[in-house]
Amino acid sequence: MSTSATMQGQPLPNLPWEQRPAGCTEAVWRYSANPIVPRDAIPTSNSIFNSAAVPFEGRFAGVFRCDDRQRVSRLHAARSDDGFAWQVEPEPIQFTCDNPDMEPYVHGYDPRVCWIEDRYVVTWCNAFHRYPTIGVATTTDFKRFTQTENAFLPFNRNGVMFPRKIGGKYAMLSRPSDNGHTPFGDIFYSESPDLIHWGCHRHVMGTSRPWESTKIGAGPIPIETTEGWLLIYHGVLTSCNGFVYSMGAAILDRDKPWKVLHRCANYVLSPQRDYECVGDVPNVVFPCAALADAATGRIAVYYGGADTVVCLAFCQVDELIAYIKANPQ
Amino acid sequence: MSTSATMQGQPLPNLPWEQRPAGCTEAVWRYSANPIVPRDAIPTSNSIFNSAAVPFEGRFAGVFRCDDRQRVSRLHAARSDDGFAWQVEPEPIQFTCDNPDMEPYVHGYDPRVCWIEDRYVVTWCNAFHRYPTIGVATTTDFKRFTQTENAFLPFNRNGVMFPRKIGGKYAMLSRPSDNGHTPFGDIFYSESPDLIHWGCHRHVMGTSRPWESTKIGAGPIPIETTEGWLLIYHGVLTSCNGFVYSMGAAILDRDKPWKVLHRCANYVLSPQRDYECVGDVPNVVFPCAALADAATGRIAVYYGGADTVVCLAFCQVDELIAYIKANPQ
Amino acid sequence: MSTSATMQGQPLPNLPWEQRPAGCTEAVWRYSANPIVPRDAIPTSNSIFNSAAVPFEGRFAGVFRCDDRQRVSRLHAARSDDGFAWQVEPEPIQFTCDNPDMEPYVHGYDPRVCWIEDRYVVTWCNAFHRYPTIGVATTTDFKRFTQTENAFLPFNRNGVMFPRKIGGKYAMLSRPSDNGHTPFGDIFYSESPDLIHWGCHRHVMGTSRPWESTKIGAGPIPIETTEGWLLIYHGVLTSCNGFVYSMGAAILDRDKPWKVLHRCANYVLSPQRDYECVGDVPNVVFPCAALADAATGRIAVYYGGADTVVCLAFCQVDELIAYIKANPQ
Amino acid sequence: MSTSATMQGQPLPNLPWEQRPAGCTEAVWRYSANPIVPRDAIPTSNSIFNSAAVPFEGRFAGVFRCDDRQRVSRLHAARSDDGFAWQVEPEPIQFTCDNPDMEPYVHGYDPRVCWIEDRYVVTWCNAFHRYPTIGVATTTDFKRFTQTENAFLPFNRNGVMFPRKIGGKYAMLSRPSDNGHTPFGDIFYSESPDLIHWGCHRHVMGTSRPWESTKIGAGPIPIETTEGWLLIYHGVLTSCNGFVYSMGAAILDRDKPWKVLHRCANYVLSPQRDYECVGDVPNVVFPCAALADAATGRIAVYYGGADTVVCLAFCQVDELIAYIKANPQ
Amino acid sequence: MSTSATMQGQPLPNLPWEQRPAGCTEAVWRYSANPIVPRDAIPTSNSIFNSAAVPFEGRFAGVFRCDDRQRVSRLHAARSDDGFAWQVEPEPIQFTCDNPDMEPYVHGYDPRVCWIEDRYVVTWCNAFHRYPTIGVATTTDFKRFTQTENAFLPFNRNGVMFPRKIGGKYAMLSRPSDNGHTPFGDIFYSESPDLIHWGCHRHVMGTSRPWESTKIGAGPIPIETTEGWLLIYHGVLTSCNGFVYSMGAAILDRDKPWKVLHRCANYVLSPQRDYECVGDVPNVVFPCAALADAATGRIAVYYGGADTVVCLAFCQVDELIAYIKANPQ
Amino acid sequence: MSTSATMQGQPLPNLPWEQRPAGCTEAVWRYSANPIVPRDAIPTSNSIFNSAAVPFEGRFAGVFRCDDRQRVSRLHAARSDDGFAWQVEPEPIQFTCDNPDMEPYVHGYDPRVCWIEDRYVVTWCNAFHRYPTIGVATTTDFKRFTQTENAFLPFNRNGVMFPRKIGGKYAMLSRPSDNGHTPFGDIFYSESPDLIHWGCHRHVMGTSRPWESTKIGAGPIPIETTEGWLLIYHGVLTSCNGFVYSMGAAILDRDKPWKVLHRCANYVLSPQRDYECVGDVPNVVFPCAALADAATGRIAVYYGGADTVVCLAFCQVDELIAYIKANPQ
Repeated sequence: MSTSATMQGQPLPNLPWEQRPAGCTEAVWRYSANPIVPRDAIPTSNSIFNSAAVPFEGRFAGVFRCDDRQRVSRLHAARSDDGFAWQVEPEPIQFTCDNPDMEPYVHGYDPRVCWIEDRYVVTWCNAFHRYPTIGVATTTDFKRFTQTENAFLPFNRNGVMFPRKIGGKYAMLSRPSDNGHTPFGDIFYSESPDLIHWGCHRHVMGTSRPWESTKIGAGPIPIETTEGWLLIYHGVLTSCNGFVYSMGAAILDRDKPWKVLHRCANYVLSPQRDYECVGDVPNVVFPCAALADAATGRIAVYYGGADTVVCLAFCQVDELIAYIKANPQ
Repeated sequence: MSTSATMQGQPLPNLPWEQRPAGCTEAVWRYSANPIVPRDAIPTSNSIFNSAAVPFEGRFAGVFRCDDRQRVSRLHAARSDDGFAWQVEPEPIQFTCDNPDMEPYVHGYDPRVCWIEDRYVVTWCNAFHRYPTIGVATTTDFKRFTQTENAFLPFNRNGVMFPRKIGGKYAMLSRPSDNGHTPFGDIFYSESPDLIHWGCHRHVMGTSRPWESTKIGAGPIPIETTEGWLLIYHGVLTSCNGFVYSMGAAILDRDKPWKVLHRCANYVLSPQRDYECVGDVPNVVFPCAALADAATGRIAVYYGGADTVVCLAFCQVDELIAYIKANPQ
Repeated sequence: MSTSATMQGQPLPNLPWEQRPAGCTEAVWRYSANPIVPRDAIPTSNSIFNSAAVPFEGRFAGVFRCDDRQRVSRLHAARSDDGFAWQVEPEPIQFTCDNPDMEPYVHGYDPRVCWIEDRYVVTWCNAFHRYPTIGVATTTDFKRFTQTENAFLPFNRNGVMFPRKIGGKYAMLSRPSDNGHTPFGDIFYSESPDLIHWGCHRHVMGTSRPWESTKIGAGPIPIETTEGWLLIYHGVLTSCNGFVYSMGAAILDRDKPWKVLHRCANYVLSPQRDYECVGDVPNVVFPCAALADAATGRIAVYYGGADTVVCLAFCQVDELIAYIKANPQ
Repeated sequence: MSTSATMQGQPLPNLPWEQRPAGCTEAVWRYSANPIVPRDAIPTSNSIFNSAAVPFEGRFAGVFRCDDRQRVSRLHAARSDDGFAWQVEPEPIQFTCDNPDMEPYVHGYDPRVCWIEDRYVVTWCNAFHRYPTIGVATTTDFKRFTQTENAFLPFNRNGVMFPRKIGGKYAMLSRPSDNGHTPFGDIFYSESPDLIHWGCHRHVMGTSRPWESTKIGAGPIPIETTEGWLLIYHGVLTSCNGFVYSMGAAILDRDKPWKVLHRCANYVLSPQRDYECVGDVPNVVFPCAALADAATGRIAVYYGGADTVVCLAFCQVDELIAYIKANPQ
Repeated sequence: MSTSATMQGQPLPNLPWEQRPAGCTEAVWRYSANPIVPRDAIPTSNSIFNSAAVPFEGRFAGVFRCDDRQRVSRLHAARSDDGFAWQVEPEPIQFTCDNPDMEPYVHGYDPRVCWIEDRYVVTWCNAFHRYPTIGVATTTDFKRFTQTENAFLPFNRNGVMFPRKIGGKYAMLSRPSDNGHTPFGDIFYSESPDLIHWGCHRHVMGTSRPWESTKIGAGPIPIETTEGWLLIYHGVLTSCNGFVYSMGAAILDRDKPWKVLHRCANYVLSPQRDYECVGDVPNVVFPCAALADAATGRIAVYYGGADTVVCLAFCQVDELIAYIKANPQ
Repeated sequence: MSTSATMQGQPLPNLPWEQRPAGCTEAVWRYSANPIVPRDAIPTSNSIFNSAAVPFEGRFAGVFRCDDRQRVSRLHAARSDDGFAWQVEPEPIQFTCDNPDMEPYVHGYDPRVCWIEDRYVVTWCNAFHRYPTIGVATTTDFKRFTQTENAFLPFNRNGVMFPRKIGGKYAMLSRPSDNGHTPFGDIFYSESPDLIHWGCHRHVMGTSRPWESTKIGAGPIPIETTEGWLLIYHGVLTSCNGFVYSMGAAILDRDKPWKVLHRCANYVLSPQRDYECVGDVPNVVFPCAALADAATGRIAVYYGGADTVVCLAFCQVDELIAYIKANPQ
């Protein structure tokens, strides 16, 4: 179960890592000490989950979703030396914005962080006129965050940047939605010359196998490989007791990422452990970020468990791509 | 985190009590040996939860919700020496009623018990012509219960008496509802000259912060303090997997209790332990009664966990009021 | 098709009247010049319908529902010399209220007017904290209207007074509802010693035959007869294209009006004419008032057509009661 | 009922026109010979409605919605000498598109046409991957139509261009939607440097008065006046029998059109005539286009009746603006 | 617009008939004096519609749906000399049944009548344990009707027999449903050796073009032609104001009727006249029966208008088949 | 708590068995080492549950539901020496079918297996034209499975055969359904002369007590006793957080099994253990099979836990029947 696929990109020797447990044959395996961030890691938090981590100045930084005890979703900056243990800022991020015509930031959730060119771009589900759409901000130090124009009109969620320009333009995946617990959702691709105006929208992929039959949404920033963009995403099944979120994987074309080259028919991780099945929202595995080491092909995936805690899972890029190809749709 | 607020009322030296655990900074903390009543405490019960306790003849008595194995909700009398260990009557309460025009009692749930003047008034969600509304009965000995007129037309739930007349009339909080798993609900206030006819209805408070954005309902009998009536209540959030019930708190005006003086933006307890997250209805914390000791300011709150078991939590009146004021809406 | 039933009450020699058309065998027949009030009878009205008329100082007065061009429902006073031609006040009624704890009147709809003892009592569906419930006011001159306490908690509609005390108390029919286009609804009976506090609620009748299988609601003030109270009401059927409102009739016990003595299995008028089938809400016949002449047994029913116009229909009390008995449920 | 407001723009001496009927005091009045286009004006049509007209080479041209007998929505070009009598092309428009990555045009509905700079821009609700969004095409002769990128991701409807650049960018109103008979909807404003990429989204206005309480959407191309942009739009009320579409009006700021200067609380035209109340969708008045003569201030509004036929209504710009201001929200 | 298709079957020289109006190019045209049966043709009827007619002893007989004034659906026998003017029996059919284990007949609707071998088989939507399924009865004289076993378990509607055995077994089309205003529905085929036990179920066709995108159901008994079985059916579109029922047509294989040989993309008749658009259910054309003259190829289709009246439409078999083929799906 | 009821049938001395735990007074008790089959018992399985076991050649065989990691439901054959430890075939069953008119098997779930006459009949919820209905197949060796006609039209689930002919015909219970997470459902009885054609449908029992108020469905093959057929079934309650599945029991008449002789008002097992409350679908106990030893009256019930694992429970036939009679509806 392996290919010769390799990553494009930088080595990340201090990537958090744990070997596959003896006897395990899964393409993706859990960290043995999950969850890595408990629900009450900061004094005001009800839960911490669905959070994004990136390499930063030799260590790690991130934007974390911390729901407070009003159950309002907040975005907090966080730091880590090793990618396992995180110090989450007790105060939410204060976005600055100098355009008075823009509606001021109120709150948001499910952040992603993408290094592109010379700064980190943060995207999240932003409350715009009380409606969900993709908020965008930039930072270089995880202290000052400058908010810019929302990428799209409402209603949208799960906006995920590509880590380089494609065809000379910025590129983003997103999932058009409705205003509630949206019961549908496909992944689309959009382009922008300036990170402000977006167009040339393309359909990427829709719902499919039962585990992803209700809706899907991009997860971590896509990882460029010799085979194409590795996209880890979430898929949702509706049981008679509500939504079940699992993790899936696909390979997109490097130049035209709206073309799906390979898509795994199976989920690669589904909610089975107590910290994924019991919590504020039972039965949720929700990936939001991945660290990748081009030197070894190792990937560490950060995912939310039960909308309550932050967890880690691991895989090898060649093995995961081999698994995707071995279980095609 | 404290005020000079004190309770009006009687000392209750034998109130069940456990000190705040070391290191805990919460305004409300759980009893370490929860649940105090298991689901099968009587031979016929499927679950025992959402129950009401009061001081009685130097010890304690109560009306408990015991769903039987048809999953029919029943009301049972119960006794306790210490407020922790309860003897629940194996047979449901037989209400007597000498008004042949009233529909006979069939079943009910979510009781509250209030000592007022010279008797205990029991209120509950009563099945009236198969529709939920507020049932009313009186007792002095927890053996004979005399049912009187339903307080309101359907559809209503969570009828909670005040422990003394206000403005010369009996007073009750309630939550108008629909006939199913009501997806909305505010707290109203009503008055009665005779415990039979009700009027002068006032709106008290509605849904608000995310944790209480679907509906709210009064919990224990309000506790009179120098700051106003301390109201502990439940608030409901709708996740993609259903309702989540948490506990909140507010202060109402002593003379015009429909005026909300303070309301806490945060929940004060939310479902986080296994006995609150796993059971017949996952993710439910539902307070129904409180014992209070005016001498010490100690309060013991009885609440249902996961619609399955009875639990206890504790707080100090001055600390809780300080917390409410420190986290205003 | 006749009984010896006669009305209790006063003669009304100037009752608006038109003989049954030749060849017609219906118990209830339409006025040949319907509608009697067009949708734009006042400059600001979008529609005028579901309105109440009473005898007044030898002529007629009423409270009319006039939806304005915001489609806000308003209540307007109206006068008529003959019961056919109406002068509707161009300005809505300004209710006065001297109780500062009551929420001020905002708007309302579907009025009924009842003469009892020494004044007219107006009831309507009142917006109380934005929720529907039964508003109550009194007038003696159709110029000054004094609003008093809402009769019930939300949610309620179609509150209809009885024209005399029953068992020493005021009596009202109503229909507990929800907050939208309620898809259910039975008629209940409530009593009050003071027109303020209401209790002793009784279930009167529920949905039944297909034409009334979704919900029912009382229409005009019940007419007392030697057989019991003649209740004209509306029943709603849900077709695949929405609600259809028809007119039905029943006889209630004179002393215990929650006891249904006779109930007609058939509707007595259903939407079949263009002014009932085409308009703001297609397929609506909604009775709100009736004039009755005890000397002749003649009844004139005012009803709304298609939620757009005011119409008249006629019947003889003995014939209608005979028809009810001849078509029992 | 008049202001000194005047239009910006060109005279249009051959604008179709009919004087206000004697006795009529409405701000907007209907053409006496409505409908101007019957449902079967072309051999294959089930219905023709919600269509757009513009001045063209001294006469008139347009893009019309013709649903065929599969009930598929099609866009057809049309010509008229006088704006009353229309020749609709029997064959649908064949859009050309030379970008192979764009999904080919399948079908569309509810077109608008806007002259800007040197060409007509057609916008419509386009089926993109079977989902509704705003399609965009250009034409100069109403024979060749070149389709370009969809303006937005799904789900969107009622995309309406402004007739000149604002702040140096193209500008469009639209209504984010869902994938069905959307039960919600506000108007937003978006900008583009190139008619391809869109951003700087602003909220313009939401639902409001009862007649527009479910959703709203822009109608004709806004008309520039000395008071601001005159926006005629549709608002939807949900009765128990479905949606009712009426016509409303507002004034937007000339430089920042997301700022609403005036908004009329009343509808200006609602479905009351048979050709608006009876048809494929009862009770629909849906404006899509307006011709305006700057010399006289006359406006002719094209609107769909009952989703079945094309109708005309008329107004004077000064009178309409006066009416808007006289009936403020 | 014609083929050489001819019918299999008997001549019917007295078939009711009216030539296509001058200028009309439709494949199916309406009778100029529609409706042929008014809603009140019998004293107790609210409406008469969705009814079945067959040749009988040189004249015509049928089973008619008469909803009474309870809005209960009843089946009534009817006779006609010419197929235009009908005498409907004032009393509903009394089905006899000698199997005490069968639930007795309560009521039913939407009948079809099929002559096969030596008797007429009546099928209808039968209330079985209050659930809809296909009732079956036989008659030879339209006076005595013998009910036999229901064909299927609930929930089913629109059971339509074939007029001869196919493959040695009786054959029926039906539409599995739910218990309400079913929002889905495909046509299936089933076989029986004995008219009691049914099996070998086959899927025939599902929803398709917009006019038939919600559900479809067989209409008249299929007409055998040299091209296959001509199936006239209804298709339903869901507008924002409810269901719209139109008439469609298809050709099924003569030996394996679950194989669809041709299916018309267009409806062949849709609700456009007042008697189809205004009534108890607006916008309904519902075909239930057809008379066919093999000598001339003439077909007379009986259909319900607006769930209120009985109407007639006409076509020529060769022209209709040509139209189906000329507008293929 | 016992009767003299005894089973009809064969001894099964190697039935898997564990004595009632000390102190337990329940009629049905759990196996102490539940679950007996974990979710990942085969390499490709997401979960294994709702499975059927039968005696086979002195040991045991079965048909098991294994959802794969696409979350597609598959049927797998399985073998066991002792009824506790199972070897599940890693590959799904390949049904053979020589009738080309039948739609080929795609997938299925919730199997039952019944020995009748000379072969095992397997029934399951079969995807027929993507709709659920009762699939039927036969086997003698659990290697070759021959599929025959679906028993019914869609929509149906939980088809359960009787183990002998009744009144000379095969007999099956089933639950007519809809196409989703059906919110209703009663048990019906049907007969067949040939296992192909089904008719003489009878209503057996509907929803009832709260624990079974949403829908019910037959579980294991009924067990014949001197008191009648012992039917173990599932009942569903809808909480505000979804469906809760419990196990119930009833006694049906031996000759006319649609007659319910006794029905237990209480559930006999409800989800209370972690393996029943936490998993892919929380709160599910779903019985599918039972082994019975006529010599001792012992019964072993196989049931699914939380739609994730296979569990065992035990009872004595005389005690269970006594419990049913002691707790009548």
